[in-house]
Amino acid sequence: MSTLPAAVSDAIEALSDLQGIGSRSAERLVLTLLRNQFGLDKKIGNALIALKENVAECGICCHLCNKTDAPQCGLCSDACRDATRICVVSEPSDVIALERTHAFKGLYHVLHGVISPMDRVRPEDLRIGSFLARVKAENPSELIFALPASVDGETTTLYLIEQIKNSFAGTITRLARGIPSGGDLDYLDAATLSQALTDRRSI
Amino acid sequence: MSTLPAAVSDAIEALSDLQGIGSRSAERLVLTLLRNQFGLDKKIGNALIALKENVAECGICCHLCNKTDAPQCGLCSDACRDATRICVVSEPSDVIALERTHAFKGLYHVLHGVISPMDRVRPEDLRIGSFLARVKAENPSELIFALPASVDGETTTLYLIEQIKNSFAGTITRLARGIPSGGDLDYLDAATLSQALTDRRSI
Repeated sequence: MSTLPAAVSDAIEALSDLQGIGSRSAERLVLTLLRNQFGLDKKIGNALIALKENVAECGICCHLCNKTDAPQCGLCSDACRDATRICVVSEPSDVIALERTHAFKGLYHVLHGVISPMDRVRPEDLRIGSFLARVKAENPSELIFALPASVDGETTTLYLIEQIKNSFAGTITRLARGIPSGGDLDYLDAATLSQALTDRRSI
Repeated sequence: MSTLPAAVSDAIEALSDLQGIGSRSAERLVLTLLRNQFGLDKKIGNALIALKENVAECGICCHLCNKTDAPQCGLCSDACRDATRICVVSEPSDVIALERTHAFKGLYHVLHGVISPMDRVRPEDLRIGSFLARVKAENPSELIFALPASVDGETTTLYLIEQIKNSFAGTITRLARGIPSGGDLDYLDAATLSQALTDRRSI
């Protein structure tokens, strides 16, 4: 016999299906929600139900956008952004991270993943077709590859460069690799450190 | 201008209102839900909305119970449990933790908090009235106090004992204090260690 009401067990089970939330955390969250006096349970519940219904993918950069704004997201329709630079990222969260820096004023292209033979992600599973068509049509002056610094990320960058190298005349760059801000040499892995050595700059 | 659709920001904001989930974790969870193909967003949303509607408080022990089972929870209506022992706990999660041990076959009483002058929790804010009435009516053979080993928990235990001492004839116990299983003396705080010394047992 369970010591918890079915509605509580159901909520715990549903929450613990989420990546990064174990059954104990889910239990704690649900019991907190039960104690909450301000309707947070309903607020979260309704927000999650409304989530996918109101979100679409931008027809240009494939970033998430309001369904009412589709087919063009706020970034792509913003006339103040530099449309001649396209930054290629893997996930919508990478756009958020880059926007947080306020250091990039160009546009993005979100691939929604990277090519990964291990995880059976093939080029056709990603937004690569739309990327190639976009590069051909818009002919930007610079493509900045900001894919993950992993084997799969590198593979995807090389694959994309291979696809465009005959038709694209602009600059191709990737994010700098090196010591992170505040990084202590002692704690850095050998790959980062050797990359930082190779890419050293004169000062 | 936000770089995220309103529905996504709403869901992130709602989730980050939860204790223990920061805005970055909330962002990660919502983006995971958007990628999820199995309707996990709807499943969690519906479970949270149904949560409070289907949960009631047991009329006897004040633990959470199915609204359909009310006024008596599964534990209180279970004839196999030893009704002569009542374990007093602070939160429903404590019942779950104790049930997980399979070491206690009696019944519970959930106070839904402890007396705390700092947090302005007074005796009348807790399920103390129903506890005193229950002790008087059922006259159990043992009361086991399993409240938190904190100042507020101790205060509540002492307050309850003070309330019943003239009318209650049975045994009053509290959970043992000492070194936790696997605990290394080196890492234990002085209060735990001195309690373990004071409560030492002959072997």
